[in-house]
Amino acid sequence: MNVSEVKIILVEPGGALNVGSIARVMKNFALHQLVLVNPQCDYLGEEATRMAVHAKDVLESAVSVATLPQALQGCKRAIATTARTRDFNSPLQSPREVLPWLLEASAQPAALIFGREDRGLSNEELNYAQKFMRIPTDAGYASLNLASAVAISCYELAQSQPHTVETNIDDKEIASLEVVEAYYKQLESLLLSIEYLYPHTASSRMEKFRQLYNRAQLQTQEVAMLRGILRQMQWALTQPGKS
Amino acid sequence: MNVSEVKIILVEPGGALNVGSIARVMKNFALHQLVLVNPQCDYLGEEATRMAVHAKDVLESAVSVATLPQALQGCKRAIATTARTRDFNSPLQSPREVLPWLLEASAQPAALIFGREDRGLSNEELNYAQKFMRIPTDAGYASLNLASAVAISCYELAQSQPHTVETNIDDKEIASLEVVEAYYKQLESLLLSIEYLYPHTASSRMEKFRQLYNRAQLQTQEVAMLRGILRQMQWALTQPGKS
Repeated sequence: MNVSEVKIILVEPGGALNVGSIARVMKNFALHQLVLVNPQCDYLGEEATRMAVHAKDVLESAVSVATLPQALQGCKRAIATTARTRDFNSPLQSPREVLPWLLEASAQPAALIFGREDRGLSNEELNYAQKFMRIPTDAGYASLNLASAVAISCYELAQSQPHTVETNIDDKEIASLEVVEAYYKQLESLLLSIEYLYPHTASSRMEKFRQLYNRAQLQTQEVAMLRGILRQMQWALTQPGKS
Repeated sequence: MNVSEVKIILVEPGGALNVGSIARVMKNFALHQLVLVNPQCDYLGEEATRMAVHAKDVLESAVSVATLPQALQGCKRAIATTARTRDFNSPLQSPREVLPWLLEASAQPAALIFGREDRGLSNEELNYAQKFMRIPTDAGYASLNLASAVAISCYELAQSQPHTVETNIDDKEIASLEVVEAYYKQLESLLLSIEYLYPHTASSRMEKFRQLYNRAQLQTQEVAMLRGILRQMQWALTQPGKS
């Protein structure tokens, strides 16, 4: 509903000028929540504050955390930005297609995740998001500067705001990301115990399950059902003679 | 017709970092003609080329002129950007409204004019344009950084081009209904055998799983994975002492 309920998450940003410039453009478009994952630059130093100009408050209220899951705590939806086409089951969508999805009433608080200046987000990091965005650029020079990518995204988010009437999403409660994460952990543990997974292949196989379930946007009660199955399965395995 | 026929004109730019960043984002969106009116910075120096990264060619082919009328020579249409509402007979239009006008066949070559970082364009300079654009920003901090304004404009120009088709949508095979149905049957049978489901409640509970998985639009290979888990669970249940 409201762009101000969208967090901008930067994973390991390396350029203080970029972070300062991002703070400014966020405020230009009424976004205020900046989260930095393991920042690699002095985001409160002279370079950042010079670029932020009148958005020093955005830098000062920025939250710095160690990992992406910490940054996502409490968020109901997350979109990850990526420039690469991957062997992914989820399509890369344009900002105009995908950003309105962050503004739906049941989505918030929500997050838009940007990777490192030089190499973006890892596959593991991408898997924390439910949808994937690529700003369409020219093949001759596809790689956008981080601050430019955020500027374009904030602009497009603000443009998406007036007509966010579409509520084809049920008002069922979408499970928060940490609830879903706990399910994945429990699933992985069971699959290892029944030897469906082996330790050396577990993470790549689990990625495929994450993609599948993230696409479905699990509701809280659905996660509870899925975890109920796992519990019951674990119980059944201890009972002799079941089949 | 073609964004590459649109010149970006910067009037008295003062920041080399801005000009370098602008060269990069122009190339990202297939614009190549940069014209600088009386530049107040070293647009071929270290700061500018560092920000341009792989768009040094745009900086090197940039044309430097003394006045705005010189920069506009040969152009058929020009839009000036301004943040201020003036005592003007022409309305301020949004990028999405006005930029397609630069791409009409009879318009080209065309120009998009940006003013100084600190005080924009003078009234006299504005009068060289036929239309006026304002990027809509939040009243709390309306003033965009010059490079951000150009980034958003280049992005919006590229979006305005007729053919932005790109279908990187996955062509992975969506599972046919009977394949998915066979999975549901196998799941139901296992859930009955572990006493997660009971015969009298099975169908209503299974509906919820159907909704979840149907929402995800399962792919053939994903159904194969899910069925693999069920098979492995069935096998584990016959093994003594697993847990």
